[in-house]
Amino acid sequence: MSVLSEFELIERYFRHHGQSRRDVQLAQGDDCAVVKTTPGTEIAVTTDTMVAGVHFDDKVPARALGHKLVAVNLSDLAAMGAEPAWLSLAITLPKADHTWLSEFSAGMHELAGYYHCQLIGGDTTRGPLTLTLTAQGLLPEGQTLVRHGAKPGDWIFVSGTLGDAAAALAAQRDDLEISSAGQKKLEERLFYPTPRVSLGQALRGMATSCIDVSDGLAADLQHILKRSEVGGRLFLTQLPYSDTLNTLSLEQKRHYALHGGDDYELCFTIPEEMRGSLETALTHSGVDITCIGQIDRQPGLRFFDGDNEVTASGLGYQHFGMATL
Amino acid sequence: MSVLSEFELIERYFRHHGQSRRDVQLAQGDDCAVVKTTPGTEIAVTTDTMVAGVHFDDKVPARALGHKLVAVNLSDLAAMGAEPAWLSLAITLPKADHTWLSEFSAGMHELAGYYHCQLIGGDTTRGPLTLTLTAQGLLPEGQTLVRHGAKPGDWIFVSGTLGDAAAALAAQRDDLEISSAGQKKLEERLFYPTPRVSLGQALRGMATSCIDVSDGLAADLQHILKRSEVGGRLFLTQLPYSDTLNTLSLEQKRHYALHGGDDYELCFTIPEEMRGSLETALTHSGVDITCIGQIDRQPGLRFFDGDNEVTASGLGYQHFGMATL
Repeated sequence: MSVLSEFELIERYFRHHGQSRRDVQLAQGDDCAVVKTTPGTEIAVTTDTMVAGVHFDDKVPARALGHKLVAVNLSDLAAMGAEPAWLSLAITLPKADHTWLSEFSAGMHELAGYYHCQLIGGDTTRGPLTLTLTAQGLLPEGQTLVRHGAKPGDWIFVSGTLGDAAAALAAQRDDLEISSAGQKKLEERLFYPTPRVSLGQALRGMATSCIDVSDGLAADLQHILKRSEVGGRLFLTQLPYSDTLNTLSLEQKRHYALHGGDDYELCFTIPEEMRGSLETALTHSGVDITCIGQIDRQPGLRFFDGDNEVTASGLGYQHFGMATL
Repeated sequence: MSVLSEFELIERYFRHHGQSRRDVQLAQGDDCAVVKTTPGTEIAVTTDTMVAGVHFDDKVPARALGHKLVAVNLSDLAAMGAEPAWLSLAITLPKADHTWLSEFSAGMHELAGYYHCQLIGGDTTRGPLTLTLTAQGLLPEGQTLVRHGAKPGDWIFVSGTLGDAAAALAAQRDDLEISSAGQKKLEERLFYPTPRVSLGQALRGMATSCIDVSDGLAADLQHILKRSEVGGRLFLTQLPYSDTLNTLSLEQKRHYALHGGDDYELCFTIPEEMRGSLETALTHSGVDITCIGQIDRQPGLRFFDGDNEVTASGLGYQHFGMATL
């Protein structure tokens, strides 16, 4: 496919930045990049696309888009316990806007650089703004975190806090009243999510299942339950919230936490006998985790408010429109 | 990023088809796919995007789009001498049209299956039609074909024939008069290009440089010259044409061959002492190759019609609009 010559300029925003990894034999400049792994290593591969007008609008700064494109992909790597390594970028742009490109690429390189991963290649095309990143990460053989290993009795944990990104979107749409300082804090979580890369690696050999919370805790946890052929109880009173979210009503914050999406926290299951090792392993990961439920044999996800089971309709699900970023 | 539920249907077109490779530990269903290589193997990675209205229009059948998306990526792998292995698809669609999806995925799976490569994952989003594929291939350590190794004295070769795809585009735009049977033959090359996968692998250890011809022979050969810091002479009388292209004027067919693009042949350089081994190695690759020039020290690409040097303007370059698919 031929690339319009104007777009060759763009390469400078992506070619001469960031990490130079020893396992990259060739980066941009040939028909392919060439990388290699060491024996005993497996490779995790993920792809995420963000489309203008669907996944983001004009309110999202270009720097945040660059950050988020990397973050959502690294979050998928984190959910498998992988160490980020290589990125391939496919960017479709209506025009070469140098301010935009400079900000977008800075956002990408900042986060990629922090995790020592290298942009090894990609494609630049003209068209409606669409951003696709393929990220690859490294795993010790046989230590992949998967969705299908949860067992009855395992405890369900989640990292960080939930619901901030969804509340930010609601505030932007005037569906939620909050102070402008509060909105700004929430938007920080929406625009600049933190992939839980260290946590994912710390969970290797301990978690029986793991997923990243991108579509809302309830939906994502149900992926684990379904793939593991188990059920689970969620302790609503244990859901972790940020200080900002704690200023909202119980119904509101539970809704954003359960159904909001875009949190990029990790949800995972831990057998009882691993809980001690978990505490030790997490000292260095720099993120709090909270036990929010337990796996059992009864199919489906059930919600408990203290000792009382609550139905989905009792959670006020239909009171708020579904947030789709 | 949340995916609209309607789009979950789409997975069936991509999940349950094609190869199942032993080096794929996990395919779709988790946050990442997981693959592994054997010791002594390197990985070639390439990404190509095709955008509706820019790289293709309504005249291109969905099956051809699926074929071509795989072909252009495998062509990049071929140019490095890599053996195709894993594909990740990012597809952005305005709506879930089942006839279109069925045809598109069939085109993808047919070609991917022929080369034993597996679709391991990707992302499906709603938005303007944009197709991005990341393809990965395997290489014995240190045997990568690159662009920068051409040496003065090396012979320049090209596989197959040149210019058909560009002539097909010109015919579609009424810039070229040709019989409808002729146009159909040309369109077959435009819609269903053949990546030279076996040839690329056969050239390992023999070719000093290699590139796939996607932007037109002249432009792509100049990438080799520039990266190798050499010059080259092109023997215009040796350019290989299909029977269909041979019905055109000399000026026309030379133009399409040199500047047209979308051929997906391989252009490569071979040292004099390797020419014998080359003939032997190529018996099994199923594609003809033609010697079309020689590398020398004088910078730039120079064109020769017999013994006479011809300037670029003498090649009628400006008589025909540049074809951009």
